[in-house]
Amino acid sequence: MALVAVSNKRVILKRYLTACEIGQLGDEMEVVTAEAVPLSVPAGSFAVLVKNLYISCDPYLRNRMIRHEVPTYISDFVPGEVVTSHGVMKVISSGHLDFKAGDLVWGMTGWEEYTLINNPESLFKINYPEFPLSNYTGVLEMHGLTAYVGFFEMSKPKKAASGAVGQIVGQLAKIIGCYVVGSAGSDEKVSLLKTKFGFNDAFNYKKEPDLEAALRRYFPEGIDIYFENVGGETLDAVLPNMRLGGRIAACGMISQYNLERPEGVKNLFYIVTKRLRMEGFLVFDFYDRYYQFEDEMARYLKEGKVAYVEDVVEGLDAAPAALIKLFTGRNVGKQLVAIARE
Amino acid sequence: MALVAVSNKRVILKRYLTACEIGQLGDEMEVVTAEAVPLSVPAGSFAVLVKNLYISCDPYLRNRMIRHEVPTYISDFVPGEVVTSHGVMKVISSGHLDFKAGDLVWGMTGWEEYTLINNPESLFKINYPEFPLSNYTGVLEMHGLTAYVGFFEMSKPKKAASGAVGQIVGQLAKIIGCYVVGSAGSDEKVSLLKTKFGFNDAFNYKKEPDLEAALRRYFPEGIDIYFENVGGETLDAVLPNMRLGGRIAACGMISQYNLERPEGVKNLFYIVTKRLRMEGFLVFDFYDRYYQFEDEMARYLKEGKVAYVEDVVEGLDAAPAALIKLFTGRNVGKQLVAIARE
Repeated sequence: MALVAVSNKRVILKRYLTACEIGQLGDEMEVVTAEAVPLSVPAGSFAVLVKNLYISCDPYLRNRMIRHEVPTYISDFVPGEVVTSHGVMKVISSGHLDFKAGDLVWGMTGWEEYTLINNPESLFKINYPEFPLSNYTGVLEMHGLTAYVGFFEMSKPKKAASGAVGQIVGQLAKIIGCYVVGSAGSDEKVSLLKTKFGFNDAFNYKKEPDLEAALRRYFPEGIDIYFENVGGETLDAVLPNMRLGGRIAACGMISQYNLERPEGVKNLFYIVTKRLRMEGFLVFDFYDRYYQFEDEMARYLKEGKVAYVEDVVEGLDAAPAALIKLFTGRNVGKQLVAIARE
Repeated sequence: MALVAVSNKRVILKRYLTACEIGQLGDEMEVVTAEAVPLSVPAGSFAVLVKNLYISCDPYLRNRMIRHEVPTYISDFVPGEVVTSHGVMKVISSGHLDFKAGDLVWGMTGWEEYTLINNPESLFKINYPEFPLSNYTGVLEMHGLTAYVGFFEMSKPKKAASGAVGQIVGQLAKIIGCYVVGSAGSDEKVSLLKTKFGFNDAFNYKKEPDLEAALRRYFPEGIDIYFENVGGETLDAVLPNMRLGGRIAACGMISQYNLERPEGVKNLFYIVTKRLRMEGFLVFDFYDRYYQFEDEMARYLKEGKVAYVEDVVEGLDAAPAALIKLFTGRNVGKQLVAIARE
């Protein structure tokens, strides 16, 4: 068989960011056209060659653009090399028994047109292609699973009030009857939380000069479940508003948040007096639950119990700007980039 | 029956402390002789009149000497009124069916010779009078129970390494085979931890310029269980040294610690990346387990599996100084005051 090679546009990291830098378009990333790639996997290889359809823009990627002296739970990007994140892909050629050409999968991939994936064991198959495939960068993927395990496993919901952030966790909480208040950074997002997602209430934290007082207003009887990245002023405002025996599920990129606001958390003594539990988790530890989650979330979506909003930009050229947008709060809904529509 | 009345020496609070003030002897407390008290309970009362034998000097008492705008989980002292804490008492006269004259009990009482206790339901009976009665201000009382539930319930010990503070929790950890390193503020205490209490190792934190590095040296494979008041520099040094899935049991008077060191905790993001659980508890929530604990701890003491050191001063006149001593670190072992030997 003759090897067919195609050109491969990609986004590479140009330079490391410093800890407090959000990044500037056109400086830290660059779109280049890399060497042409052959469109089949090398003979004898167990790799999988995929065509990238959608890639996910996530806050944790900023942290990977910083060089860490001490390794974190995920590797730093390397200047000159392709940026990677989760994406939705179509298998073009496979050396692995579990995959065949045409399969739709999600998992870690490159910000480029084609990627050779050497550890296809890390990929998940897409069992519900009837949903928009882009949902597999969010509600039907790691993000949904984070909300799912964070809520049902870590937060041990009973029936009472709950403060929650994020599209999905708040809706999961609504499903089991919690009182849910969301916090967002624009009036447009606040409106979305209350209408599209059915939260009991929501507020714009940028318009609240005293967050602790605002939370007291929204939760006069206190907060049972708090779901967010740990840290800084927000956690300090939440802690005095927690109810006795409350639960804090801590997921995601606290390190990053922390680096930007190094003032420290002062109200930790409420953990003792209010007998709180704060528990950290990384969704990677729950990947064995993925397909169970996928079934359940697919059902919620079909039944209309979970709504989902995406902010899709078109093309790899727009990818660096889409990622930066995330940190200025201008995206509404899950930010992702469409590279190809199959 | 003729009522017999006796004079009643007592320690009263003279003035509130400010948040950062440790207190100065002869200023914030005063020893006075109060009105004579009748030596039997009023007719028809369900109260119990006790003679106080030992009273307990504990860090949380300092916090009760501060006036709080927002109520904490325990009431503030009132200037002019008697200081209260846990103590060991002998019942002199009882209007309550559960108690009779001569009973030995422990519970909340006044820093005075005689106290009329209006809620005797809060008292615990002493079932092992063969131990020094003073042990019922510590190892066989709330403090022992705190170590016991904090370790066995909150910390979920497996079998591996453990950092622990306090006399008792370290010894409980040793009983089930943990590797235990103690931290103390003087060489004398360090020596006590290693010899009398059998800790695997111990160090003087005042001689360690870099606590994080010291912990890395003592726990090259990381810390599974950390047991202490939450907060400040110590927690910041512990967090990077925790092992994946480690447990932090947070008990006691963090608020006080916190007030003295308001710099905030910066390393909380390790809760996420290391999947830690930090859980607060107050021993009051576990009082239903007391008599089960008392049996078990009495057995450990009799078998020599738990050793216990007390620092006893004599007489109510010495009580204010004994409490202050606690905050300068000059006591060795559980600080208490002997008021009477029955």
